[in-house]
Amino acid sequence: MKFNNPITVGDLAKKVNGKVIGNSATLITGLNEIHRVEKGDVTFCDNSKYIKAAINSAASVILINEACEAPKGKSLIVVQKPFQTFSDLSKELRGDYHSTASVDPSAKVGSTTRLFPGVVIGKGVTIGEHCIIHPNVTIYDGCTIGNNVIIHSGTVIGADAFYYQRTPNGYNKLHSSGTVRIDDNVEIGAGCTIDRGVTSETMIGAGTKIDNMVQIGHDTVIGRNCLFASQVGIAGVVTVEDDVILWGQVGVQKDLTIGKGAVVLGQSGLAKSLEGGITYFGSPVREAREKMKELALIKQLPDIIRELRG
Amino acid sequence: MKFNNPITVGDLAKKVNGKVIGNSATLITGLNEIHRVEKGDVTFCDNSKYIKAAINSAASVILINEACEAPKGKSLIVVQKPFQTFSDLSKELRGDYHSTASVDPSAKVGSTTRLFPGVVIGKGVTIGEHCIIHPNVTIYDGCTIGNNVIIHSGTVIGADAFYYQRTPNGYNKLHSSGTVRIDDNVEIGAGCTIDRGVTSETMIGAGTKIDNMVQIGHDTVIGRNCLFASQVGIAGVVTVEDDVILWGQVGVQKDLTIGKGAVVLGQSGLAKSLEGGITYFGSPVREAREKMKELALIKQLPDIIRELRG
Amino acid sequence: MKFNNPITVGDLAKKVNGKVIGNSATLITGLNEIHRVEKGDVTFCDNSKYIKAAINSAASVILINEACEAPKGKSLIVVQKPFQTFSDLSKELRGDYHSTASVDPSAKVGSTTRLFPGVVIGKGVTIGEHCIIHPNVTIYDGCTIGNNVIIHSGTVIGADAFYYQRTPNGYNKLHSSGTVRIDDNVEIGAGCTIDRGVTSETMIGAGTKIDNMVQIGHDTVIGRNCLFASQVGIAGVVTVEDDVILWGQVGVQKDLTIGKGAVVLGQSGLAKSLEGGITYFGSPVREAREKMKELALIKQLPDIIRELRG
Repeated sequence: MKFNNPITVGDLAKKVNGKVIGNSATLITGLNEIHRVEKGDVTFCDNSKYIKAAINSAASVILINEACEAPKGKSLIVVQKPFQTFSDLSKELRGDYHSTASVDPSAKVGSTTRLFPGVVIGKGVTIGEHCIIHPNVTIYDGCTIGNNVIIHSGTVIGADAFYYQRTPNGYNKLHSSGTVRIDDNVEIGAGCTIDRGVTSETMIGAGTKIDNMVQIGHDTVIGRNCLFASQVGIAGVVTVEDDVILWGQVGVQKDLTIGKGAVVLGQSGLAKSLEGGITYFGSPVREAREKMKELALIKQLPDIIRELRG
Repeated sequence: MKFNNPITVGDLAKKVNGKVIGNSATLITGLNEIHRVEKGDVTFCDNSKYIKAAINSAASVILINEACEAPKGKSLIVVQKPFQTFSDLSKELRGDYHSTASVDPSAKVGSTTRLFPGVVIGKGVTIGEHCIIHPNVTIYDGCTIGNNVIIHSGTVIGADAFYYQRTPNGYNKLHSSGTVRIDDNVEIGAGCTIDRGVTSETMIGAGTKIDNMVQIGHDTVIGRNCLFASQVGIAGVVTVEDDVILWGQVGVQKDLTIGKGAVVLGQSGLAKSLEGGITYFGSPVREAREKMKELALIKQLPDIIRELRG
Repeated sequence: MKFNNPITVGDLAKKVNGKVIGNSATLITGLNEIHRVEKGDVTFCDNSKYIKAAINSAASVILINEACEAPKGKSLIVVQKPFQTFSDLSKELRGDYHSTASVDPSAKVGSTTRLFPGVVIGKGVTIGEHCIIHPNVTIYDGCTIGNNVIIHSGTVIGADAFYYQRTPNGYNKLHSSGTVRIDDNVEIGAGCTIDRGVTSETMIGAGTKIDNMVQIGHDTVIGRNCLFASQVGIAGVVTVEDDVILWGQVGVQKDLTIGKGAVVLGQSGLAKSLEGGITYFGSPVREAREKMKELALIKQLPDIIRELRG
């Protein structure tokens, strides 16, 4: 991202209450995250593990939280929270959102919440303050959204439970009268689907962050500060405790519980409940360490069989 | 789901033509499915396997199809079809759908079918009676939808086939002039994509139920009364016979046939056609029993190798 | 697809500059791709591998690029490029797209580009000429689309990066100010999500074709003429070089590079960068040949163990 009006290191430091180490006159022409940084850009470093990468990058200026010697040709701006300072600059650059909103008359929507075009909100929906509901989101009747919630385009909140009774004449639908409740500070990516409870609530706990195309089934209860990467699928009536991380394309069968702080690596498949605080991998899932040993052993099998055959 | 106006067991029994066992004066304050039931709620039990769970639950009242002694503190209402009675109550509680409909003038839509806001329907589309097309659904030109079909938000029916010819200058698109035909009593979840045939029809047979985010490729023909869980992906020109069940995240390659009544467990991957009436698992898929043996053997390998090394 | 007005083989040959072998008077009543062809239809064959299938099919007429003897009861029309001729006929049959367009006043959109109903286009978006943006597509602020780009319904271009900092009080969002750039001749299926760069660009190279429900993360750079099948998920900051093919449900972790011309089979999972020009399979991925050997060995294990136990 390039600035419309480049700014000197000295002026930026003043703006963000930082201390300059190096040349205050250097002109900053843009900002970029470490993987994409170019000459003239400011980037940030908030972890001593990455200082070397930041210093060796093309960045001209680094927002950093530890005073150290400025490397040749680079300036540092020391601030308390480099990530936050960088994020605030990025937000400022992005500029304001649309003001065109299509508000459904039947919904109770906080006065500071922004609804984008194409958003459809059902009867009796409640949405709190400071939310951003992006274009073409659908929120079905009766769902409740807290404060500071962001929902990206195309996401569907509150579609019917996938719940049928098999009869000799085919499947018989159980009509859903439950709802969805999304607590404060949740962010939901684009193209997600979060089904309503059959008769109870599907819930997403405060602070949980959900990437694009994540499916969450009926009556599932997600704890606080969970992180779900793209294309995760969680069936109905699952309990996910706080601080759980599910990486991309993980699948979770119905009726399970995932314990607090569990981490599940990408493409894993869960058919059993998982204890908290442990990292898992595989389909079916095992403790990641066990699974890695298993994979290593399988690779060695041809040699082992040769050895055993003598 | 709580009732706006609580009702006594006796009054509910009259309403649903049921027989009370226990206290007719008990006040019912809501209804809930067995996994989420609370004190004051009515729940249902239509399978003798679950009677114990229902009786041990927090439910105050149980809709049941076998007369038995009412457990202490609970009332029973005996009805012929507890699932249906419960589902009807749930539907009644949910209330009416929106009346705001945005009908495209070029489409032939049954007079009893409801189209929600944001629905876009192409030229020459035909939709039967008693369908519900939820917000922000897109139906491309020429598709045909039967009667009693429900399509949830964000779903796209009839996008182009993914079909290209590789040339020295890149990929050359085969333009699709085929369509999609969806038969009676089908339900399609939110965020699904069902592509049109190249020049023929993609078909979904009567009574088939499809969960959220399911992909069905061009010219694929799905039988009657199939059940596809969330995030299933089926490529083009696949034939799925009647009564097939595919669990979450199953992937099916192009040109295959899945025989009548086959069941494929979650995250399985199909590169070959499957015989009907059998349960499968794995990627690549095997008969589930064989796959389970294989997984058990792999777990025992370290011990077996130790034993063989002597 | 059936013709409204059937046409004789002789008249079709004139129309497409082809030479008839067989009966010029045969009436053609429709066209269909080889897998779905019916009596009366014209189909095409552009690969000598498939001549036998075409001849044994129900087709009455075959567009073909090699003169050969017409099989009994069939006519051939010899043309230089049967695929292209067939595709042109299919496009003509499909007819014109809608003329109802909902153009957002703030966007710069090429005069020959068609925007369908329900499309929402953000501030400062640029779209080139001859694009087709299907219903209910969302393009966020600042994204750039080239010429001859097709985007199918429900797709979301430019939602925020999934990028957070973990703090003792939960996750802290890094605001994205980057964009998405899509080059000429790209086609993107229905229900895809392509996130904006954090501060740089997410890029899709010219000629790349993307199927339905594909996820592409922030700052990922895709080369030219790649082919991604349905439900592929690519995380952030990935580099995919030219001519890469990813089959259905493949998952790619962040920060990786996939070399030019690599092919990755369905449901594979990438946790490491891949060299170009090679075919891969498995989760975690291996060279496909190695993986196939591994799978064969696992199937033989019970026999091998029996043999070793003596």
